[in-house]
Amino acid sequence: MKTVHAYAAKDSTSSLEPFEYSLPEIGPEQVDIRVEFCGICHSDLSMLRNDWGISTYPIVPGHEVVGRVEEVGAMVKSLKPGDRVGLGWFSGSCMTCPQCIGGDQNLCTTGQGTIVGRHGGFADLVRTHWIWATPLPDALPGESAGPLFCGGITVFNPILEFDVRPTDRVGVIGIGGLGHLALQFLNKWGCEVTAFSSNPDKSAELAALGAHRVVNSRDASALKAEAGRFDFIMSTVNVPLEWSDYINALAPRGRLHTVGAVLEPIPVSAFPLIMAQRSISGSPLGSPATTAKMLEFCTRHQIAPLVQEFNMSDANAALNLLEHGSPRYRIVLKA
Amino acid sequence: MKTVHAYAAKDSTSSLEPFEYSLPEIGPEQVDIRVEFCGICHSDLSMLRNDWGISTYPIVPGHEVVGRVEEVGAMVKSLKPGDRVGLGWFSGSCMTCPQCIGGDQNLCTTGQGTIVGRHGGFADLVRTHWIWATPLPDALPGESAGPLFCGGITVFNPILEFDVRPTDRVGVIGIGGLGHLALQFLNKWGCEVTAFSSNPDKSAELAALGAHRVVNSRDASALKAEAGRFDFIMSTVNVPLEWSDYINALAPRGRLHTVGAVLEPIPVSAFPLIMAQRSISGSPLGSPATTAKMLEFCTRHQIAPLVQEFNMSDANAALNLLEHGSPRYRIVLKA
Repeated sequence: MKTVHAYAAKDSTSSLEPFEYSLPEIGPEQVDIRVEFCGICHSDLSMLRNDWGISTYPIVPGHEVVGRVEEVGAMVKSLKPGDRVGLGWFSGSCMTCPQCIGGDQNLCTTGQGTIVGRHGGFADLVRTHWIWATPLPDALPGESAGPLFCGGITVFNPILEFDVRPTDRVGVIGIGGLGHLALQFLNKWGCEVTAFSSNPDKSAELAALGAHRVVNSRDASALKAEAGRFDFIMSTVNVPLEWSDYINALAPRGRLHTVGAVLEPIPVSAFPLIMAQRSISGSPLGSPATTAKMLEFCTRHQIAPLVQEFNMSDANAALNLLEHGSPRYRIVLKA
Repeated sequence: MKTVHAYAAKDSTSSLEPFEYSLPEIGPEQVDIRVEFCGICHSDLSMLRNDWGISTYPIVPGHEVVGRVEEVGAMVKSLKPGDRVGLGWFSGSCMTCPQCIGGDQNLCTTGQGTIVGRHGGFADLVRTHWIWATPLPDALPGESAGPLFCGGITVFNPILEFDVRPTDRVGVIGIGGLGHLALQFLNKWGCEVTAFSSNPDKSAELAALGAHRVVNSRDASALKAEAGRFDFIMSTVNVPLEWSDYINALAPRGRLHTVGAVLEPIPVSAFPLIMAQRSISGSPLGSPATTAKMLEFCTRHQIAPLVQEFNMSDANAALNLLEHGSPRYRIVLKA
């Protein structure tokens, strides 16, 4: 038995408070990670508030962990105590279904979310199946790497999965925690990168992140002027958009891809899809193999989340900034 | 000047009547086809009724033509008088835009529809740009080949374009003129083929066409029981469906593809897309190169539309059967 010192909310309206819980003896395929840093994601807020109806309380949020392996189960071959690793949204997969044995552990239909029905990374220790503890290259600084394991892999995954090509014209909707990483990835991918931002005052900042062009997403005529331009548009936001304008902004064969879990259905007209062979799609976080490729890509291209650091004991203040302020661009808690 | 003897409707509520019009001297890149057969497509009905608001009158329908080249323009290199060819929805493309020079003439944004603002194949003669007159292999019978050039290529194109694989589990919604060809293509493609039909009495017929399984599309519980099964579902219908059931019927990475121009927007929830990396898409007819590949595939696998033949002079009776009856499966007019 290990005692974990964590921060938990006791119900959907409460703030975080110190919370202790016990972990049973480690299982043969499990890994315990001593948390050094943990990013904060909008999904932590959604889970704290039970927006998706799947939260259980008390809830310990946190699924952008960087830390060091403290203990490994008897069957764990790839990790040893002291290894530096990251952990994201998933902390378990069945390892036997067609998706798991095909390398798509992220698409396992019985996958375990790190903060769904179990406790996450706002803590000194967090447990996971070994497959989801991804080694962190030495070159990547721990204090900023956490957000790669949720926000980062969420936007990297579709670029790889949907074969975005360096010759493509691409757009990113919403330049926050996810979008600021998408700009960096797509720029280094070789694409022409357009940022759709509701705050064009940030233009210089967006350019520094990799945007070659900025379009004011609140300017209806500017949006319509983009008709037919893009091979790939990624939406990182979770609010309804002028979807038909974005679909029309796609070139023939173009794809509008959402990683933002907008609750209202997207009304998709068949004609604009049919006439130009367009696609609409979505995706979750990437697989462990894709996560490793992302980390290698980040190392080669000096890609890193821009973070604001808080002490974990100030997690409530950090959550308040995420919910009501404009963090630039991702918040990380130091354990 | 040539005089064309055709059948035209003078407005959106009229029947077809004999109609003559004159063609000016043939242009350098044009081809005149002496019509032998012309299939009837639902799009002919939609254009006759001006359902899409793009019809001009008098309108001569017909865009599933089989015939012989009668005359070619001075610059035409690939065809000569006497060649047997087919002509479908398109009869012109700009030949200079990125899509055209990339081989996607079907995605040319200024493409010319055969019955849009000009006269189609319910006639003894029809004119086209040479790129859209596709040579018909000798092995394919003229009396049944016409529907391949619209119905056939419409369902063949996405199978090729979206990389449907022989190991895939696929479904076809709506087994009419398009669907009965999709079943044949997908069966010979090597896939496990499921027909979603509102008329399961046709099961034996559907099996003969290539369906390994039949699901009653009017049985809500049968539909829900298909959850997670399909890598690819193609909808050939143009009416609203229980879209969420079909999206849920997709396996991880699955695609719901519509070639049916349903007018009501499809409400797409982000969550089922995101959780399983699913796509929604549409496509028009295929390119000339893809059309040629389809014809070769049909030849190799003895794929042909099942047709009911009418004389072109009975076109009104044929249209009435299409609109109010159940043709098995496609109607062809003999010129």
